[in-house]
Amino acid sequence: MVFDLSTTDELLATTRAVRKRLDLTRPVPRELINECLELAVQAPTGSNSQTWRWVVVDDADKRQALADLYRKGAEGYLSAAGEQTTDAQTQRVFTSAVYLMEHLHEVPVHLIPCVQGKPEDPVPLAMASGLYGSIYPAVWSFQLAARARGLGTALTTLHLLHAKEAAEILGLPDDVLQVALLPVAYTIGTDFKRAQRPPVAGITHWNAW
Amino acid sequence: MVFDLSTTDELLATTRAVRKRLDLTRPVPRELINECLELAVQAPTGSNSQTWRWVVVDDADKRQALADLYRKGAEGYLSAAGEQTTDAQTQRVFTSAVYLMEHLHEVPVHLIPCVQGKPEDPVPLAMASGLYGSIYPAVWSFQLAARARGLGTALTTLHLLHAKEAAEILGLPDDVLQVALLPVAYTIGTDFKRAQRPPVAGITHWNAW
Repeated sequence: MVFDLSTTDELLATTRAVRKRLDLTRPVPRELINECLELAVQAPTGSNSQTWRWVVVDDADKRQALADLYRKGAEGYLSAAGEQTTDAQTQRVFTSAVYLMEHLHEVPVHLIPCVQGKPEDPVPLAMASGLYGSIYPAVWSFQLAARARGLGTALTTLHLLHAKEAAEILGLPDDVLQVALLPVAYTIGTDFKRAQRPPVAGITHWNAW
Repeated sequence: MVFDLSTTDELLATTRAVRKRLDLTRPVPRELINECLELAVQAPTGSNSQTWRWVVVDDADKRQALADLYRKGAEGYLSAAGEQTTDAQTQRVFTSAVYLMEHLHEVPVHLIPCVQGKPEDPVPLAMASGLYGSIYPAVWSFQLAARARGLGTALTTLHLLHAKEAAEILGLPDDVLQVALLPVAYTIGTDFKRAQRPPVAGITHWNAW
């Protein structure tokens, strides 16, 4: 297949972390989540381990319970970090993250990507990369597939500070590692733009640093 | 923009770990790598940290040195793991991984994604996910952008067992964390297929495990 770069590049360049533009009023059909998951698990995994597992929450009470936990992990961090930054783009990110924290219970779907087989905690860096490198390509594929279908997502990890309580809410077995929590909703509008980034020449080193 | 799902889904479903079908004879222009990197850094990062850094190696001596290190990390693991597996798909993965190990020095480009700011080692799991979740979406975007351009890649992490020696070869500062090593080359043919995967229903849990 010859790919149309205008489509593929647009997908990669405009899949943003969506928080303020999540449509809190429109339900997301389960079929659509399943379609994105089918594409997600096409991503390769280390040693073909295929240990991705997915917890999808659309029950209102459980979303409220997760949102309460998320707030417990996020509140102090977001206000402190938001006040410290002087970069305008990063300030917008923190304002948007606070909005998400306040509305997480209203987001129609929460996706919690997991890995079957929990490593030791803390985990050696030489092992950690293979572990997360076997789940994050699938997670990002989910986000890209969602974007192509008019859905917005954002990767968050702050509920992991209370991972044990989240595991109780979700009934997770002890050997299942939670990786993140992604709100999923239709987006308000679909006109997402490229982000401003510094030129890659400044962050790329050919053959030596 | 309305996305043509046949193109976007094909991209997500057929970007495979390419090892045996890397074209070892055809040079890869630097412009093409830069194009993929420009798309990669559009991916979001935790707290908008934007700490991705990229080391790209096309010098033959350095590729040889990295390939020697990779073999040191991979040789024992791959032969032991390959002998243990009984699953045919996973056996093919290990055969292909051994092929890559033996030919890594011949692959025209090695990409080493890095993160500026090295965490403690070992790293707490609650921190690790945010760390790797800020680089792997960009890495997978690179791989998808490469695929759309006729390039093949594979995510490997076994050289990290000798990360310190690799850092010496590449002249990396102490506070730079290596995340992976990806061979990059044109592919031999472009007819990559979807992988066989179990139905997602069996690995998806709605509202509770």
